[in-house]
Amino acid sequence: MIVVVTPNPAVDVTYRVAEQTVGVTQRVLEVVRRPGGKGVNVARVLAAAGTATTSVLPLGGTSGAWVATALQQDGLTTAPVPVGGDTRTTVTVVDDHAHPTMYGEPGPVVSTDEWAAVTDAVRTAQRHATALVVSGSLPRGTDPGMVSPWIRGAVDAGLLVVADLSGPALLGAAAAGATVCKPNREELLDATGAPDERSGALDLLARGAGVVVVSAGSSGITAHTRDAVVTVPAVPDVHGNPTGAGDAATAGLVLALTAWGRRPTATLAPADLRHALVTAAAYGAAAVLRPVAGEVDLAAVDRFTALLDRTGSPT
Amino acid sequence: MIVVVTPNPAVDVTYRVAEQTVGVTQRVLEVVRRPGGKGVNVARVLAAAGTATTSVLPLGGTSGAWVATALQQDGLTTAPVPVGGDTRTTVTVVDDHAHPTMYGEPGPVVSTDEWAAVTDAVRTAQRHATALVVSGSLPRGTDPGMVSPWIRGAVDAGLLVVADLSGPALLGAAAAGATVCKPNREELLDATGAPDERSGALDLLARGAGVVVVSAGSSGITAHTRDAVVTVPAVPDVHGNPTGAGDAATAGLVLALTAWGRRPTATLAPADLRHALVTAAAYGAAAVLRPVAGEVDLAAVDRFTALLDRTGSPT
Repeated sequence: MIVVVTPNPAVDVTYRVAEQTVGVTQRVLEVVRRPGGKGVNVARVLAAAGTATTSVLPLGGTSGAWVATALQQDGLTTAPVPVGGDTRTTVTVVDDHAHPTMYGEPGPVVSTDEWAAVTDAVRTAQRHATALVVSGSLPRGTDPGMVSPWIRGAVDAGLLVVADLSGPALLGAAAAGATVCKPNREELLDATGAPDERSGALDLLARGAGVVVVSAGSSGITAHTRDAVVTVPAVPDVHGNPTGAGDAATAGLVLALTAWGRRPTATLAPADLRHALVTAAAYGAAAVLRPVAGEVDLAAVDRFTALLDRTGSPT
Repeated sequence: MIVVVTPNPAVDVTYRVAEQTVGVTQRVLEVVRRPGGKGVNVARVLAAAGTATTSVLPLGGTSGAWVATALQQDGLTTAPVPVGGDTRTTVTVVDDHAHPTMYGEPGPVVSTDEWAAVTDAVRTAQRHATALVVSGSLPRGTDPGMVSPWIRGAVDAGLLVVADLSGPALLGAAAAGATVCKPNREELLDATGAPDERSGALDLLARGAGVVVVSAGSSGITAHTRDAVVTVPAVPDVHGNPTGAGDAATAGLVLALTAWGRRPTATLAPADLRHALVTAAAYGAAAVLRPVAGEVDLAAVDRFTALLDRTGSPT
């Protein structure tokens, strides 16, 4: 079982309109409402791949109640932590003409006591888990050090820990000894202030991260250890919806790494890392084929894995 | 007590952003979430003016539950009718540069059985009422004849009935004998297919309406009977938020007409109508001064009433 923490879950609403125009009243032609947040997408993909998960997430208000119900209806196991503030909503407006427009609410302020309850929930859930994933933004005003005890506790308990975080929380996750830190390139450079990817990755490794995996969309995905840099190219000619592809890649990474049990990452050879990256890239590409975040085309995962195994080569 | 029916209530969400732009991700700087729908605005203004109300409205899903709770927290008496579909949400995006952009969800499909439950709730609520207000759009797919039994039942019970509807529902309300039909000019011409306001009003009167009151924003407000046309100009130089001003005017109209008890409208002299229109115009203008729909500045109501009484003259 894999525990997935989503610190700032959301109700993701998508409105399809005839044509986006500022300053007018627009009839919404189609409404899609889904539980969102990066960790929620990761948990969905893990579940789709047949892996048991428990989603720990602070939820509040009627929007939070809706997220809890919707996740349960989708068959996901949840450990919701009640909070006083309302879970945020994001509204994405799409048409057939322009890029989507996304409106993101700031999200609730979660109190120190409420975060302590999240920490308790993580601790309880991880008792029967092989891995912990912490993924997504933190609600505004959250002490970024809040994630460190979750990560340290799971590492100490022998779990594989993957942290997809940004800013100071990413640095904290590395310092707490996360097995894998998985920022995208922009988040890595932004958090570390490093001039290039390798320097940024070395910074996180020096702080305590086991491996740093950097996703760069169509440029592929790279794993950094102190001694090795392994890159797997993206699957070519995949077109569709890139939203959630990074989260599917995280799920693929976790699936590949937990397939070997609880092996400490320090012993991962470049060939092992390469296999994990291939799995991650295949899941990411297979998510692009699906219209909504949190879904993957499992047949495409197999096809893309075979393709990358044939064409890619360790660098 | 006044019964207010809102056939298609909503969660009205307003997002303030730095600058509206299509195709980008925008941080929402401020979120305001309020129960909405024209009838809800009318009930709020009546309540603010110290008049007891009961709001009958079909509500479904977590959005519907939110509306019920929020109205109760605002001190409004509600008679919510549970429905299977989710109550709609509207999202209005504002900035300091462009006109607001409004996204309106289509709303739930309400079944015939659910409408029958609404009819029962209206009948129960009106037992101790002096007036019935039916205001706002119908959910998609609703038979517009659905409103007729509410109106006929209330008229038969001796209540003052004000219908702020559009399309076939407006024609049906007139045929059911609504004391006052109160469309805006566009709705009147659209529903009747008449070439001008007077012809449209005569059409509704011929169908059975007692009085037709037509609001035309800054051009004032006019009452039509078979024999008379009375116009009161708008309060000059009022600037602010016109959203909900028409609903406040409806509330003002109801307050003026119910102040005389249950007098049948056939006996309303032009001077009485003029007083009702002055009250309606004053409430409408006083609502423009408030930043959100459903609120009025009561001191401004008195000021504007005095102003219109001094300056306006019957036509």
